[in-house]
Amino acid sequence: MVMQQVLEQLAFETHGQGFTRLDPHLNQWLAASGIDTGVLHLTCLHTSCSLTINENADPRVLKDLAAWMDAIVPQDGAGPKGANGQRRRYLHDDEGNDDMPAHIRTALTTQAMSLSVSGGRLLLGTWQALYLWEHRAMPHRRRIACHLIGDIKTTTKTVANTSTNLIPEAWTEDGGVDTEVDLLIDRLHDIADDPP
Amino acid sequence: MVMQQVLEQLAFETHGQGFTRLDPHLNQWLAASGIDTGVLHLTCLHTSCSLTINENADPRVLKDLAAWMDAIVPQDGAGPKGANGQRRRYLHDDEGNDDMPAHIRTALTTQAMSLSVSGGRLLLGTWQALYLWEHRAMPHRRRIACHLIGDIKTTTKTVANTSTNLIPEAWTEDGGVDTEVDLLIDRLHDIADDPP
Amino acid sequence: MVMQQVLEQLAFETHGQGFTRLDPHLNQWLAASGIDTGVLHLTCLHTSCSLTINENADPRVLKDLAAWMDAIVPQDGAGPKGANGQRRRYLHDDEGNDDMPAHIRTALTTQAMSLSVSGGRLLLGTWQALYLWEHRAMPHRRRIACHLIGDIKTTTKTVANTSTNLIPEAWTEDGGVDTEVDLLIDRLHDIADDPP
Repeated sequence: MVMQQVLEQLAFETHGQGFTRLDPHLNQWLAASGIDTGVLHLTCLHTSCSLTINENADPRVLKDLAAWMDAIVPQDGAGPKGANGQRRRYLHDDEGNDDMPAHIRTALTTQAMSLSVSGGRLLLGTWQALYLWEHRAMPHRRRIACHLIGDIKTTTKTVANTSTNLIPEAWTEDGGVDTEVDLLIDRLHDIADDPP
Repeated sequence: MVMQQVLEQLAFETHGQGFTRLDPHLNQWLAASGIDTGVLHLTCLHTSCSLTINENADPRVLKDLAAWMDAIVPQDGAGPKGANGQRRRYLHDDEGNDDMPAHIRTALTTQAMSLSVSGGRLLLGTWQALYLWEHRAMPHRRRIACHLIGDIKTTTKTVANTSTNLIPEAWTEDGGVDTEVDLLIDRLHDIADDPP
Repeated sequence: MVMQQVLEQLAFETHGQGFTRLDPHLNQWLAASGIDTGVLHLTCLHTSCSLTINENADPRVLKDLAAWMDAIVPQDGAGPKGANGQRRRYLHDDEGNDDMPAHIRTALTTQAMSLSVSGGRLLLGTWQALYLWEHRAMPHRRRIACHLIGDIKTTTKTVANTSTNLIPEAWTEDGGVDTEVDLLIDRLHDIADDPP
């Protein structure tokens, strides 16, 4: 076996603030790469959206996470409210109230993440999913550099391909409605021996 | 020299909220790998504990870090306290008050980290240690994927071994009692020319 | 092509709290490596400064980011102010008020980051820059391990060189004065089709 690398930019459409699940799309891309074991290096090529791993089961986790972020990086300015009930406004606000908070929220999470690939798939825990977290209010087309280094099984792979592919169907709603499915998921949590 | 890779899952027992130092255990594992120079990619396969690098000397650093996290990601809900003295409760709370804060605290730190290996050991700064940060109140068995890519010196290494090994003795108490050792450590800090 | 690795420590002088732009210096180093396509693994070998990616255009972004961090990780202690108008003091304060906040701010961002290299340069988005974020009040000399794994084009490269090189001119002021250039940059933002 000889180590090889594949570099390609994938594009994902977001629909305003919220989470787009990436791991199923990346697993499709990995399957096409012909590399069985290696490391996938992801770089989100923007400064107002980020990569994050969190639970894949109960949609309320993402709702709570987003609500916490709204509280800690408020859209109306930084720091505690003053005597006038107002926060100190961000200096960088020409693109709208949601812009500077998006930069801060991105810095608190990350734009670069390296994950193991085993059996041609991302090696994640039972309850883990990888999300693209859009921090801007409007929909955006976001590019992610996908750089795979690993052992190749076939010899037909193009190496260092840097084109951009769009995966238009790649997005999910932020959160969701609490349903009986949530309760079932909670039960599964209780009986699972693999802690989230 | 030819680049090779080794992938193995290690398990660590945690004892509720607090820090388990990982770098000595990982150095033992690295020594057994036969790889001298390379990169170790770590993925913590859970969504309620995380990886973090911080000071290895004064245990009060970890105490202060944990206290800050308790204040910024409170266990009793998100956002500031309302007129009734209560925060807005998390939606995802069926597994206990400590569950949703654990997901948020994990997102604020990281589950994936890549570190250089040189001379068969993790390349860390003088004052750096790598910790597994358990955010749940109860003890858990946590799995970390350890994926090493580097130059191998011997040819007897098993590649892409994906078994899970338990290191049962791997944990340390969160923080510790302030002692005269702490004062000595502070003095060492003062005279060290390598800033933390 | 055969995958190769280069490991070297670079040093950067910081000038107290603020941001030192790294990507131009790293691109110079990459050009000298002879490696065209690969991954650069960076480890900041300290516990009170960190790596972060953010906007490269409007200096007010970094000012707002730093002001937010000052508010959320205050220098005078953790948690909300008590009845006496004081926060709970940090336990670890022998090195000054700025020390423990620096450890927390480092934990909130990151010391380890892996970025793609393509065409002999860091693969970053249009609006992205990589910064070394100094969290201590005093100037420091900071070491970053630069570990490049990739395909080498020439055969003259020294592999696994672990010396430390100082780049003395590598720093920029935190923020800057708002000028008409900022307004121009804002206009550019408005017309750019590549969202930050």
